[in-house]
Amino acid sequence: MRLSRYFLPVLKETPSEAQIVSHRYMLRAGMIKQQSAGIYSWLPLGFKVLRKIENIVHEEQIRAGHIPMLMPTIQSADLWRESGRYDGYGEEMLRMQDRHGRDMLFSPTAEEMITDIFRAHVNSYKDLPLTMYQIQWKFRDEIRPRFGVMRGREFYMKDGYNFDLTKEDALHAYNRHLVSYLRTYERMGLQAIPMRADSGPIGGDYTHEFLVLADTGESEVFYDSEVTDLTFGDRDIDYDNVAQCQGVMDEFTSRYARTDETHDAAEFDKVPEDRRRVARGIEVGQIFYFGTTYSDKLGATVVDKDQNQVPVHMGSHGIGVSRLLGAIIEASHDDKGIIWPEGVTPFHCGIVNLKQGDDEADAACEALYKQLSNAGLEPLYDDRNERAGGKFATMDLIGLPWRITVGPRGLKNGVVELTCRRTGASEDLTPDAAVAKVIKIFEPHHVRGL
Amino acid sequence: MRLSRYFLPVLKETPSEAQIVSHRYMLRAGMIKQQSAGIYSWLPLGFKVLRKIENIVHEEQIRAGHIPMLMPTIQSADLWRESGRYDGYGEEMLRMQDRHGRDMLFSPTAEEMITDIFRAHVNSYKDLPLTMYQIQWKFRDEIRPRFGVMRGREFYMKDGYNFDLTKEDALHAYNRHLVSYLRTYERMGLQAIPMRADSGPIGGDYTHEFLVLADTGESEVFYDSEVTDLTFGDRDIDYDNVAQCQGVMDEFTSRYARTDETHDAAEFDKVPEDRRRVARGIEVGQIFYFGTTYSDKLGATVVDKDQNQVPVHMGSHGIGVSRLLGAIIEASHDDKGIIWPEGVTPFHCGIVNLKQGDDEADAACEALYKQLSNAGLEPLYDDRNERAGGKFATMDLIGLPWRITVGPRGLKNGVVELTCRRTGASEDLTPDAAVAKVIKIFEPHHVRGL
Repeated sequence: MRLSRYFLPVLKETPSEAQIVSHRYMLRAGMIKQQSAGIYSWLPLGFKVLRKIENIVHEEQIRAGHIPMLMPTIQSADLWRESGRYDGYGEEMLRMQDRHGRDMLFSPTAEEMITDIFRAHVNSYKDLPLTMYQIQWKFRDEIRPRFGVMRGREFYMKDGYNFDLTKEDALHAYNRHLVSYLRTYERMGLQAIPMRADSGPIGGDYTHEFLVLADTGESEVFYDSEVTDLTFGDRDIDYDNVAQCQGVMDEFTSRYARTDETHDAAEFDKVPEDRRRVARGIEVGQIFYFGTTYSDKLGATVVDKDQNQVPVHMGSHGIGVSRLLGAIIEASHDDKGIIWPEGVTPFHCGIVNLKQGDDEADAACEALYKQLSNAGLEPLYDDRNERAGGKFATMDLIGLPWRITVGPRGLKNGVVELTCRRTGASEDLTPDAAVAKVIKIFEPHHVRGL
Repeated sequence: MRLSRYFLPVLKETPSEAQIVSHRYMLRAGMIKQQSAGIYSWLPLGFKVLRKIENIVHEEQIRAGHIPMLMPTIQSADLWRESGRYDGYGEEMLRMQDRHGRDMLFSPTAEEMITDIFRAHVNSYKDLPLTMYQIQWKFRDEIRPRFGVMRGREFYMKDGYNFDLTKEDALHAYNRHLVSYLRTYERMGLQAIPMRADSGPIGGDYTHEFLVLADTGESEVFYDSEVTDLTFGDRDIDYDNVAQCQGVMDEFTSRYARTDETHDAAEFDKVPEDRRRVARGIEVGQIFYFGTTYSDKLGATVVDKDQNQVPVHMGSHGIGVSRLLGAIIEASHDDKGIIWPEGVTPFHCGIVNLKQGDDEADAACEALYKQLSNAGLEPLYDDRNERAGGKFATMDLIGLPWRITVGPRGLKNGVVELTCRRTGASEDLTPDAAVAKVIKIFEPHHVRGL
């Protein structure tokens, strides 16, 4: 993309309404625009990152054998009356009537509807196991929306639902989700720690939240420092292998790691003192096995081998897709702006032309642009007639992890400058060597853009 | 995908509520499930096609230089009061109040909001031309939703908006949209004819609808048969080239082609009698130049070269993304089911194992499955223990354009059977030759799946 043809309305001033750094930078980098309290437009740069994150979530869910589908945002109140949640949900639910006076609502989650789809079409244990998911807009009418996309009212969420014949099978689905979530977050450059969560009114022992450590996190967290040494890496996982998935679950959840909601001081004290950590975290996902709660209420049963009608065991598993942009920025920025991890950066590499209009500099930039594009990467070429300082400030603010700077002086020596946004380190390279290096950097991060 | 692990709830009976063939087949093929009147869940097979269509639209819009972004579904009534459309829109607008009693609505279109974004961020003619678009869920509370996804209440739509300094520039944007739409529809295997449309209360001469000919179309159309001889093909278009885009516009719109809304019998009579056609059509898109209507109302101006504040010239351009599934099926089916064009088929090739459990047949199917997958294609392998007749019926119903049939008898002679869904023609080929042929067929149809 050539910046002269893009829509990137960066702001010089820090918007006063933004209290946390991710909100400030998303506004300043022209990624979002608030349209109402907690409701945002996703401007081109923001949408580009949102879509990359969405694609990673899809890829990892499909890899785990989960099946994508989509449910509508506007749902009839009837299903929610059947489950008993229509009255229980309170003011967070956005309610309306259609032109015929029927009660409708904007879906805040979809346990009811997926169970309705299941009961309409599945009758036999032979069709199990089954896990379906969607990535869809949700609405929760928060009383005090804040922190930008971190606690918005309209938000983009992956919600997946497993249907299994037995508790044992459902716990394998639970583990499968844990594994796929670990992979998902790591591809985004995030360390998200599974912590034992509170199962709320539904109850049950099986729920974990995934938290990203950040000073601005809404939750206080308590953990054994050994959990932050764990990485998933690129191990080869067979998602059908029950023992293998259980092994990952055990490895990542056996050490103490809890939020303030489930914190147990006595248990925490058993962690060696030098490994006890208290910090803050941002919740970016949750997995939850809740057994037959919804299948009982909505009559989602199958016939088992012995011809008995039995309710299916279910769980639901969410990733806050739009919220992840905020979490990534909270975890990865400096005082100049965002620092995108390679896996989610909107553009792979910036190209800064120090002397727009200089024939040689222009030609060199064009050549770099073409070479990177032909390699399947998306460069952002700042081809505007601006001072170098302004161009650097924009690149730093929007956080592209790599930048190639092109100027007449370097070209005389046959070199351009390749700069790493995270470390600030620069090196002079021939244009071909710079391109080759950038291509190599992104090889492990093949994520489809739009 | 192995069918035994997929969620494909095909129905044997024809659902009584479905009046037209696309609605019937989408229900029978397990693509959608109605959740309320005119509101559908997209089951896995339906969602897969929806996403392919969405990706084609994105690819062609980006190729034309248009910039993707996203606006929220829930919008404040205030903006719509400013444009005067809040009261004017009537009962088709789904309205609600949030918990603080503020009037909100589910966006049926987004001229107001995109203009609001523009006026907040763009001040100078130097930032023009600019075209942004989104693909987002919309809601129109139709009094009588019907025909499945063809006239639903919640629907997926691409809506794009151009901002230009002059009428002349805006008409180039109009032409650019026409060209990109022609490419888009052809990639989906559709012939969509641009027809002069009615500009309604806003007025103006510049609006075309794109219609797909189908007996079940909601509009009566009148055209010179020469328009159906035109194809866009794979011509190389420079979207910045004003004359080239105008040339395509002239070529595709100079012959008589109108809907009943703009039909002019006297003009039609000038078409040679043997070329006059009266038929029915399904609207799948519309382009519209409306000048400064919204920029005047909402104060979207820029400073021009002479330092004057001038309102920008705008147009809006839509493609009915979810509706396209219905239109494609209406245009491409037979009495056995859907026939997907190669560009949008959910799976590229079916694999039918005639004798599941036979070692040799199973191994041959697995090998085909792996070879096709490794080539970047998505096969659907019917690995269930079902009769051959049932497997064929399912493949025919869901409409995969190519099928490879594997059975012990053929394997003894070293062959499998490759069948074309559209023609019914079959040929015996070695497994390698069958794979090579399928790969070759899909070479020009590289569309990213999920």
